[in-house]
Amino acid sequence: MKAMIVNCTLKPSPETSNTEALAAVVAGKLREEGVEVSEIRAVDADIKPGVETDMGEGDGWPPIHEALLAADILVIATPTWLARPASVTQRVLERMDAMIAETDEEERPVAYGKVAGVVVTGNEDGAHHVISEVMGALIDVGYTIPGQAWTYWNRGPGPGKSYLEDDSGHEWSRTTGETAAQNLVAAAKVLAAEALPVPVSG
Amino acid sequence: MKAMIVNCTLKPSPETSNTEALAAVVAGKLREEGVEVSEIRAVDADIKPGVETDMGEGDGWPPIHEALLAADILVIATPTWLARPASVTQRVLERMDAMIAETDEEERPVAYGKVAGVVVTGNEDGAHHVISEVMGALIDVGYTIPGQAWTYWNRGPGPGKSYLEDDSGHEWSRTTGETAAQNLVAAAKVLAAEALPVPVSG
Amino acid sequence: MKAMIVNCTLKPSPETSNTEALAAVVAGKLREEGVEVSEIRAVDADIKPGVETDMGEGDGWPPIHEALLAADILVIATPTWLARPASVTQRVLERMDAMIAETDEEERPVAYGKVAGVVVTGNEDGAHHVISEVMGALIDVGYTIPGQAWTYWNRGPGPGKSYLEDDSGHEWSRTTGETAAQNLVAAAKVLAAEALPVPVSG
Amino acid sequence: MKAMIVNCTLKPSPETSNTEALAAVVAGKLREEGVEVSEIRAVDADIKPGVETDMGEGDGWPPIHEALLAADILVIATPTWLARPASVTQRVLERMDAMIAETDEEERPVAYGKVAGVVVTGNEDGAHHVISEVMGALIDVGYTIPGQAWTYWNRGPGPGKSYLEDDSGHEWSRTTGETAAQNLVAAAKVLAAEALPVPVSG
Repeated sequence: MKAMIVNCTLKPSPETSNTEALAAVVAGKLREEGVEVSEIRAVDADIKPGVETDMGEGDGWPPIHEALLAADILVIATPTWLARPASVTQRVLERMDAMIAETDEEERPVAYGKVAGVVVTGNEDGAHHVISEVMGALIDVGYTIPGQAWTYWNRGPGPGKSYLEDDSGHEWSRTTGETAAQNLVAAAKVLAAEALPVPVSG
Repeated sequence: MKAMIVNCTLKPSPETSNTEALAAVVAGKLREEGVEVSEIRAVDADIKPGVETDMGEGDGWPPIHEALLAADILVIATPTWLARPASVTQRVLERMDAMIAETDEEERPVAYGKVAGVVVTGNEDGAHHVISEVMGALIDVGYTIPGQAWTYWNRGPGPGKSYLEDDSGHEWSRTTGETAAQNLVAAAKVLAAEALPVPVSG
Repeated sequence: MKAMIVNCTLKPSPETSNTEALAAVVAGKLREEGVEVSEIRAVDADIKPGVETDMGEGDGWPPIHEALLAADILVIATPTWLARPASVTQRVLERMDAMIAETDEEERPVAYGKVAGVVVTGNEDGAHHVISEVMGALIDVGYTIPGQAWTYWNRGPGPGKSYLEDDSGHEWSRTTGETAAQNLVAAAKVLAAEALPVPVSG
Repeated sequence: MKAMIVNCTLKPSPETSNTEALAAVVAGKLREEGVEVSEIRAVDADIKPGVETDMGEGDGWPPIHEALLAADILVIATPTWLARPASVTQRVLERMDAMIAETDEEERPVAYGKVAGVVVTGNEDGAHHVISEVMGALIDVGYTIPGQAWTYWNRGPGPGKSYLEDDSGHEWSRTTGETAAQNLVAAAKVLAAEALPVPVSG
């Protein structure tokens, strides 16, 4: 079983990413469960604006798209900016939009046997909204979201420290993240055995 | 396999509910798949404000809660008001909040073996937002949301006719709703065979 | 100048409301600025479901509607449940929906000379989303929202103490709330002098 | 009086932008009201990821930031993708985040005398959510949003034609957009005469 973590931080490598640090909790638990985990930092690739799988010369999306197709489990890890999903996250979702129309040999959308979860960090309120937004988009694409398949860390009210600067709340974020990892694996296993059926056509 | 459709229209029975009409598409397909479907109109019950399972004398929630526990599949059917989930929908979600802390004999949240979908109607734009909001809340409670487990109907831009007054777009809403029904059944079957694991504790 | 604070807590009087406690900060500053402030707890009134100004026998909305028309400034104070606006808040917004079609003698929507702000409390993340949702609905109705006309208090990640049980962050919520009060008064004054123009008709 | 329209289409010039076409309705009415209007297409500039005003070499944001400071009225025009604000829109908002901390000589946030509105296009449902999201972020930055200062066009349910391919609903979007333009001008005038006060400090 393969999982792919897409870190949507605004910071290019090798800058320290708080989002990566919290995603590592989920990645660790996934590995413990025997899953092969790969991680990419989306901002390092030149992902062109657009809603097709290949936006032409210099587009960094096609190899990420390939990796998504190969993964049973997807984890979108995103920071919160202005209490909303980061622009990099939305760019990734826009490029995944084309996957709605991509089907396997049985005419099922390619995501119909896959599951997804979300990891959110911020130094202020906004995580639940970001989680709902990202999950809503992934469900549109055809991913199944297991119950409680997310974790987050922040500290409100108002602006404050980042995840790596403030130890409070880490334990809650960790157990929540490990639970998410477990639920992703359990749901991925049953869906791998029997994917969602071919959609009803008009 | 049992499904429960909670219609969150603002209109008490026996007023005509557009939301009920679109939910009937999903209910029909669920029955075709051999599922036993029950439907309630939440506004007919006196569901008290609060976030506990029993808010005391005259509270209409406890029997609905019992029915939720018995159902493998939940469909929240909701109108859109001011482009947001109806107050009746949010009331239902608030009362479901207590289910996060209710566990089975193995300490799993009671929703961990259940799946949910959403049906939305409106005479104006807002459906995707309502879908994300309702799904986000249900995932918090522990429900699994299969890919593309929703349908909606509306006509933008601006205010317009209701579902039962305008035939356009019904075919899209129907095939989308039937696909949602299929996906709910498929995911409920595999989860019934093997529910999500016991959450990691701190 | 008159302000009205609508507290949308789920708790009927005389239960202690955290939302009321934070709204009192805004109310205090409004009074300091010479504004006459009235407060109601919406859950104490029997506000019927629906989207008309008078939903018939026993409906508790019409006197609240009258008070809204008399107020230059509206503050919606709301708790956060499942990271979303409370059902009582959405009920209030639904009943305000009818105000879109109510006009003054010059055919301007009745809210065109009015401003609004938002106060949010929760024991967990969700405030910014709730603020955006409530403001979005109020702008639809015709209210003007001055810059930074909101405050909130919560403590993430995960469930935690309520506003009245935890002193941390109160200072930020207070200065933010007092700034909101100032901005509401400033914007209400200029709008009272010259309201928004008559809408363009088709 | 100056207005700036930031078109957040994903399509680089000279591709046809539906969003630009609807924004032109608002621009036309603003000009009719005597406002000097400039328009930019954000995707044409290389706006780097980040949340500071200058993200270094090659960053296309600083001249846009200068233009924002010079404008009394801002209109964010955005397409809808996966029912959410476009990645380009979120990128613009992230870069505007730094404006929260930029103050004039009286210590007021630079947006305290400015107003903003929103234009949304899509070939499917999602506009109200996008409007709330963008307005919520702009209010955080300090912009004032006049009542009904937005317009949108789309056609639900399901995917469909774009604004320039389908004439239905254009009249509603036009009168709504012209009303938005009027309201922006009226509110900008009164705020220009008397901006919001200096925030309360801790």
